[in-house]
Amino acid sequence: MPVHLAAPDPAHIRSVDGVELGFAEAGIRKAGRRDLMLMRFAPGSRVAGVFTQNGFVAAPVQVCREHLASATAIRGLVVNAGNANCGTGDDGIAAALRSCEVAAQLLGCDISQVLPFSTGVILEPLPISKIEAALPAAFASLHADRWTEAAAAIMTTDTVAKAASRRVELDGVPVTVTGIAKGVGMLQPDMATMLAYIATDAAISLQALQRMVREVADVSFNRVTVDGDTSTNDSFVLVATGRAVAPEIIDAEPARYEALKAVVVEVAQQLAQSIARDGEGATKFITVAVDGARDGDEALRVARSIANSPLVKTAMFASDPNLGRLLMAIGNARVEAFEPARVDLDLSAGDDVVRVIAAGRRAADYREEDGSRVMKADEITVRVLLDRGPASTVVWTCDFSYDYVKINAEYRT
Amino acid sequence: MPVHLAAPDPAHIRSVDGVELGFAEAGIRKAGRRDLMLMRFAPGSRVAGVFTQNGFVAAPVQVCREHLASATAIRGLVVNAGNANCGTGDDGIAAALRSCEVAAQLLGCDISQVLPFSTGVILEPLPISKIEAALPAAFASLHADRWTEAAAAIMTTDTVAKAASRRVELDGVPVTVTGIAKGVGMLQPDMATMLAYIATDAAISLQALQRMVREVADVSFNRVTVDGDTSTNDSFVLVATGRAVAPEIIDAEPARYEALKAVVVEVAQQLAQSIARDGEGATKFITVAVDGARDGDEALRVARSIANSPLVKTAMFASDPNLGRLLMAIGNARVEAFEPARVDLDLSAGDDVVRVIAAGRRAADYREEDGSRVMKADEITVRVLLDRGPASTVVWTCDFSYDYVKINAEYRT
Repeated sequence: MPVHLAAPDPAHIRSVDGVELGFAEAGIRKAGRRDLMLMRFAPGSRVAGVFTQNGFVAAPVQVCREHLASATAIRGLVVNAGNANCGTGDDGIAAALRSCEVAAQLLGCDISQVLPFSTGVILEPLPISKIEAALPAAFASLHADRWTEAAAAIMTTDTVAKAASRRVELDGVPVTVTGIAKGVGMLQPDMATMLAYIATDAAISLQALQRMVREVADVSFNRVTVDGDTSTNDSFVLVATGRAVAPEIIDAEPARYEALKAVVVEVAQQLAQSIARDGEGATKFITVAVDGARDGDEALRVARSIANSPLVKTAMFASDPNLGRLLMAIGNARVEAFEPARVDLDLSAGDDVVRVIAAGRRAADYREEDGSRVMKADEITVRVLLDRGPASTVVWTCDFSYDYVKINAEYRT
Repeated sequence: MPVHLAAPDPAHIRSVDGVELGFAEAGIRKAGRRDLMLMRFAPGSRVAGVFTQNGFVAAPVQVCREHLASATAIRGLVVNAGNANCGTGDDGIAAALRSCEVAAQLLGCDISQVLPFSTGVILEPLPISKIEAALPAAFASLHADRWTEAAAAIMTTDTVAKAASRRVELDGVPVTVTGIAKGVGMLQPDMATMLAYIATDAAISLQALQRMVREVADVSFNRVTVDGDTSTNDSFVLVATGRAVAPEIIDAEPARYEALKAVVVEVAQQLAQSIARDGEGATKFITVAVDGARDGDEALRVARSIANSPLVKTAMFASDPNLGRLLMAIGNARVEAFEPARVDLDLSAGDDVVRVIAAGRRAADYREEDGSRVMKADEITVRVLLDRGPASTVVWTCDFSYDYVKINAEYRT
């Protein structure tokens, strides 16, 4: 059960001028479900992406990197669910290229102008003939208003499709930012989440867009974790069609760059939080905030140590204020020259804030009934104050329930 | 249910000349169970220890380090289960010292000659008056043949007491090595396991013993993981009473040092494996072996990435050959200049060895029924061949079951 996360209302997800989406049932893993998605971008669109840091890089991610580096204008992308096309060697590369080739024929462009993506089971051959057979139907269904259906077509163990949309004015010109994402397990993105696509009709230089995709990933998808396992296929792609009439944003214009980035961050953070809310087996949505770290790296290490601790996550599931586990997890972040006696920790649900640890030990006025009350909420914030420096971070995660085990013990069967 | 792990047979656990053990019911967390243990060492015994690397170091560990550094001869140790005395500030230090003081009065030695240990819930005050009240009973029960009962008195969520014993001849003189350990969760020791005590009647210099305790920890307790969470209280203590009549081993005698170390390693590895066999909720015992790494650090990083992956562990629980997860976990170890195409991986149960990954991809002759057959065993070995260098390691762990969640969601309640 996702935590306070409803399926997106198509009426609230705006189309982006210059982007069309289509889908089909390829039957890659299971028959009778949409598992293939195609996106077409208008000529002149700029595309930038960030990808997994896992050492085993899936074949489609390798092809994506090459096609983006070759710097021809990207005109479309093809995504399949049900099979990750990873650990598949040269055959996997050939299959990814073949999906680009078929899509390119339909879209009327070069192979290198198409990006391929796959998500699903690792170490099994991609059934490329099924994708070839289904691509024409996906092409025939291309339409600007298919964002929510496209979001559904890329799901694996997701229970809810994930889409978000915002509108902003840049120099008086209305600009739209809309995105979709999938991913609920094998999920601690490092550079990007499982699969996320955000498009805008803003005009922006390729160089500025490439910078933006990294900066946005860093404060959104790279801040979410379900189980600490980084997928082999993580990809986050940012598309700018330039169709909104406004002068192109280039790197030298910080104010307009930041204005667009702010709204892309909003969309990306909503999608990233959706991922944690729909985390495998999630019953609670947990925000871990770390303040007073020496630098961002240190803050992130502490936040992730808490967010990935199985003991913290099972205590959250049980609503059990076994809060010594939070202390253990902070200590495990291996902060250099760590000073336990400076650490404070608050637990909160909405406006109900309880100080649990003060100066490295149980706070004098902490009472177990206060901890219990907050732990019963289904949205909980853990705030750690390290008192060592100026850096902060926030990480979003979920609890660890029987259903996480159930989902992952039964995923393939 | 522990995996192929029976309670130790007292007849197979030899006493160590110069070591006596006692226990009592202090009622620290629950009434009616033995939760306090006292050990007495004969005059002239040498004692060395290694402790947790968690940044929040429990009060008793801080006191242990001071008492060991002060270099007076250690004459005894006191251990309580049920409360970790961590995150308890100066009061915690005072309580740990008070337990040493009461034990020292009974043993007729100085406070600094006693080492204190605690295990249990973090962030709650240690009920020192209960320990004070129960220590005389523990003292009264001191006896050389109480190893298995002592092992039972230090358990928390352990389901089986852990003890191991070996005998070896050094220069024709029979020498005994006997040890006990506890710990089944919050468990990825780094320097030492939760709590482990090994004693020998061999004669060895303090300097050589201090070296041995580190070297032994490194190939035994530091190679086991249940959930990747390193406790705040991890301690491993090695005691040599010197009562066996043989010339003292000093550092300059590598052959005799190695002969003793080999048998201490045997005892330590059996205890370490017992911890994984009794890991919280364990239904399978899993050995992860990594060969061909550039150095030991790299090998350990790969082995731990596999052994701590929730996705690998739930697949093991389900006997599901979803082996792409192994590939994902290898890739997540962030090996420098990683070459996926050199990686092989075998899965085995006893003599049944199945090659799953060859040259970074699904092995050509791998068949799912072979993977399924091996995954059904309750003792499984994962062997990774990195083909990059000469270093190897082995890590022991267990699977991740519904019962891990159950045990940790209900631990305090």
